[in-house]
Amino acid sequence: MINFEFYSPTRVFFGREQHKRIGEIIKGYGFKKVLLHYGGGSIKKTGLYDEVVKALNDSGIDFVELGGAQPNPILGLVKKGIEICKKENVELVLAVGGGSAIDSAKVIAVGAAHDCDPWLFSSKRKVPERALPVGTILTLSATGSETSSSAVITNEELKLKRGFNSDFNRPLFSILNPELTFTVSPYQTACGIVDIMMHTAERYLTQKGEAEVTDRIAEAVLKSTIIAGRAALKNPRDYEARATLMWAGSLSHNGLTGLGRDFFMVSHQIEHEISGMFEEVAHGAGLAVVFPAWMKYAYKYNIPRFCQYAVRVWNCEMDYENPENTVKAGIEATIRFFKEIGMPTTLRELNIPEDSIEEMAEKCTDFGNRTLQGYIEYGKKEIIDILKLCL
Amino acid sequence: MINFEFYSPTRVFFGREQHKRIGEIIKGYGFKKVLLHYGGGSIKKTGLYDEVVKALNDSGIDFVELGGAQPNPILGLVKKGIEICKKENVELVLAVGGGSAIDSAKVIAVGAAHDCDPWLFSSKRKVPERALPVGTILTLSATGSETSSSAVITNEELKLKRGFNSDFNRPLFSILNPELTFTVSPYQTACGIVDIMMHTAERYLTQKGEAEVTDRIAEAVLKSTIIAGRAALKNPRDYEARATLMWAGSLSHNGLTGLGRDFFMVSHQIEHEISGMFEEVAHGAGLAVVFPAWMKYAYKYNIPRFCQYAVRVWNCEMDYENPENTVKAGIEATIRFFKEIGMPTTLRELNIPEDSIEEMAEKCTDFGNRTLQGYIEYGKKEIIDILKLCL
Repeated sequence: MINFEFYSPTRVFFGREQHKRIGEIIKGYGFKKVLLHYGGGSIKKTGLYDEVVKALNDSGIDFVELGGAQPNPILGLVKKGIEICKKENVELVLAVGGGSAIDSAKVIAVGAAHDCDPWLFSSKRKVPERALPVGTILTLSATGSETSSSAVITNEELKLKRGFNSDFNRPLFSILNPELTFTVSPYQTACGIVDIMMHTAERYLTQKGEAEVTDRIAEAVLKSTIIAGRAALKNPRDYEARATLMWAGSLSHNGLTGLGRDFFMVSHQIEHEISGMFEEVAHGAGLAVVFPAWMKYAYKYNIPRFCQYAVRVWNCEMDYENPENTVKAGIEATIRFFKEIGMPTTLRELNIPEDSIEEMAEKCTDFGNRTLQGYIEYGKKEIIDILKLCL
Repeated sequence: MINFEFYSPTRVFFGREQHKRIGEIIKGYGFKKVLLHYGGGSIKKTGLYDEVVKALNDSGIDFVELGGAQPNPILGLVKKGIEICKKENVELVLAVGGGSAIDSAKVIAVGAAHDCDPWLFSSKRKVPERALPVGTILTLSATGSETSSSAVITNEELKLKRGFNSDFNRPLFSILNPELTFTVSPYQTACGIVDIMMHTAERYLTQKGEAEVTDRIAEAVLKSTIIAGRAALKNPRDYEARATLMWAGSLSHNGLTGLGRDFFMVSHQIEHEISGMFEEVAHGAGLAVVFPAWMKYAYKYNIPRFCQYAVRVWNCEMDYENPENTVKAGIEATIRFFKEIGMPTTLRELNIPEDSIEEMAEKCTDFGNRTLQGYIEYGKKEIIDILKLCL
């Protein structure tokens, strides 16, 4: 194990009906004024909005609201949220929704506690020193933002999608009621499954650090997600399957599944350019395209590790004479599963033309100002090679 | 999954040399005055004491000290610690040692923040409302106290060992350097292995709640502990093995391995009477005796669950015609492993006479005032039956 620091302080309230306790929970912390932040209005259709408002009212929690957090949440809305928080003396930002609403809420919470352009944090030019507390009511199992230290938003003017990590991004509490995901569409469910798997697999397929217990926990999360993913797609109201996906999602990105190993996020970083430039692309769908291509490109740098992934996660046979066969079987199994759950595995399926590859690679290196760290250093050339494998 | 709440806010600094950062870490939190609490002096022999003192001095952290926390730490010392904290305006209690020093520190920290007999908390007659923060430098992989919400101490006058759970018992931070466990004796190492396994197995062998991902994580912790346990006993300076035991220990009792299931601690509760009455008995050794007996007694209430334990943790063959054979193979595998690592599996080996069984059972029911909750309600009769299976 290589040295690590682990800090995951979010208090989780998990289970049926838990969102109805939101007023009581906020009151328990002593907060009186809340920004209620949510997405495009689906929570109004499902009745969740009304239940949250009732719970807040019943506990005498005063709130202002800001809807409109879209997939790939944008800086413009974040700025509006910050303005409201400052004007209204908001004490806690409550996100009701999926990763988009939560990430948006996190940047609002950081921005509201400082007096500068919030994009400085997202573009990693300034380190946050404080933040308002964030609470979440999760409606989508995917990003793990409900426990993670990361927040990703898009600068709609620059068409750049950027994330930053900070302990100030860890939510104070998260309410996880799997029933709230019963109505998530098969496509969005599948995108979530891919995202959960990738948060774990990108920690698993790395280089340095033996970590027996971490490896086995990562495999536990991956295998549970595969099994529960199939079950949830078969029956969207399967509580146990939805619960497994929800909890696996929260564990997959709080750090646990990679402790004691080094940590690459190459596929995530490359994918951010896809959904950054093509807003209609869901993050999970983009990952389903990039990750297999990255595996094909990178496996040669650590064949034993990719064999372990194939054998332990996908039950592939170990080919001791030709380990590359095992690696390839693992990659094929991954692609087969993504297809099975209805995910695209090529850029073509996402309607992304080949001639946008160069621009995506350019942006991914921050116009030549950074490289991605992994088995090798990925510059523009390497990123283009991977994106070409996505065609 | 049944509804749960999960809260594990302890910041973990894991790895080589990490204890040398103790001064800097405490300073980072802004504390200036510390109670340095430790055990019987082994930290002086190993040089750890000097390193901690140097680190505190280098960062300008003022400290008072209290040694003498013994295995099964006692109320008398806790009271002394509380007195020092109050007199010296201590801001943080720093435990350097194993579960005994940490548990003792936790009760000191709670007691120092109240004006009442601290036994009221341990005997669950009063709920803590606050506590001083606790930091730990762990020297023994066993109790999981470095991340857990529990603290167990012994009232030496009443000869009663009692624990209580509270979020105030969660350490603020824990420093986990596996190198500090290189000098732990084979016997103490084995006691720790049993304790780690039992914190997980007692959450696993329960009744209510399907919890796919939790089950697999529990199995990950159990299997890693078995593999690393053997390796650490073979080579006490095997860093990876010691690291796995240390991290598995911390995960085994922070709640993670039982989320979404009900939670029995019957073997632990019964064992507390053994090491409470017979101070020379190590908790882990007592558990190695009680747990197999409890399994033999209780398996009939959930045969499928005990089969899953046998098959997934010990790789036993599933006997579909006679599932009880699988259960028994799992119990035998557990006993065989305990013996292999040098643990006792009978009361006789602990030199505990049969005629003390009744008194232990009596105390375990708090003299008729409580029963233990599990597959059934365990009163005096049932506890006697289990203890007789330990002979």
